[in-house]
Amino acid sequence: MTAAETKAEETQIRELIDRWSEDLRARDVSKLMRHYASELRVFDLPPPLEIRGVETAQKNWSAWLPSFEGPLQYETHELEIQAGPEVAYSHSLNYLAGKKKSGEVMDLWVRVTVGYRKIGGEWKIVHEHVSVPFYMDGSFRAAVDLKP
Amino acid sequence: MTAAETKAEETQIRELIDRWSEDLRARDVSKLMRHYASELRVFDLPPPLEIRGVETAQKNWSAWLPSFEGPLQYETHELEIQAGPEVAYSHSLNYLAGKKKSGEVMDLWVRVTVGYRKIGGEWKIVHEHVSVPFYMDGSFRAAVDLKP
Repeated sequence: MTAAETKAEETQIRELIDRWSEDLRARDVSKLMRHYASELRVFDLPPPLEIRGVETAQKNWSAWLPSFEGPLQYETHELEIQAGPEVAYSHSLNYLAGKKKSGEVMDLWVRVTVGYRKIGGEWKIVHEHVSVPFYMDGSFRAAVDLKP
Repeated sequence: MTAAETKAEETQIRELIDRWSEDLRARDVSKLMRHYASELRVFDLPPPLEIRGVETAQKNWSAWLPSFEGPLQYETHELEIQAGPEVAYSHSLNYLAGKKKSGEVMDLWVRVTVGYRKIGGEWKIVHEHVSVPFYMDGSFRAAVDLKP
């Protein structure tokens, strides 16, 4: 691939991330799901270790997104993309904040790695890995208070 | 890329993972480091959110690996690979077990996503994301007790 071709694929991935983020902030599950391939595998913040399939992901988003009240803040920082003609991945530190209907305030930085595949000429998400580290001081507490 | 070409790249990635795992089990830091590119970015189990550069990774491995006494068990399960001609990634559920010199026993399943780039004709690791989920029951405890 030439540098220009690589750049063009990277731009498409960046646009996909922008649209995905808009759909997340709008809490629009059906729009959000359009960015995923059916053979999706997700390593998410809460257990279990993994979920598979776009139907399970849709069910989870449908349960989680309506638990927020008012605006959901979502920002992608320090984004890096490695793109080939059909396979690509990205990694970034993302900021997520919002107030839940339960009154709980969410406000944390997460590490996000996303795997993509070009399917039918369009980039789709086939893998997501979202996490925080944990303190190895014996407390095993998730490090939800870190900032980049 | 033809199916045979994709398969050939996948085989190379698989061999890299096998060699990496052997070097980890042997606790051989200098051999382990050969599999990394210099522009490495790691999202690791302990804080901080990220580390950058192969020197920092080497320092961390050099501190961590000698803390084990006797054999270190490391297994890759449910490995999936997406490979292009120059960009590839893999995701799997890995089992890690060993006894530390402090007496502490480590025995946990982690989610692992690895990003690769072909550099000078050879696949190198440029990104690692290793994590466990955490319980969203208010305890914020890292879920180190999960099994696939």
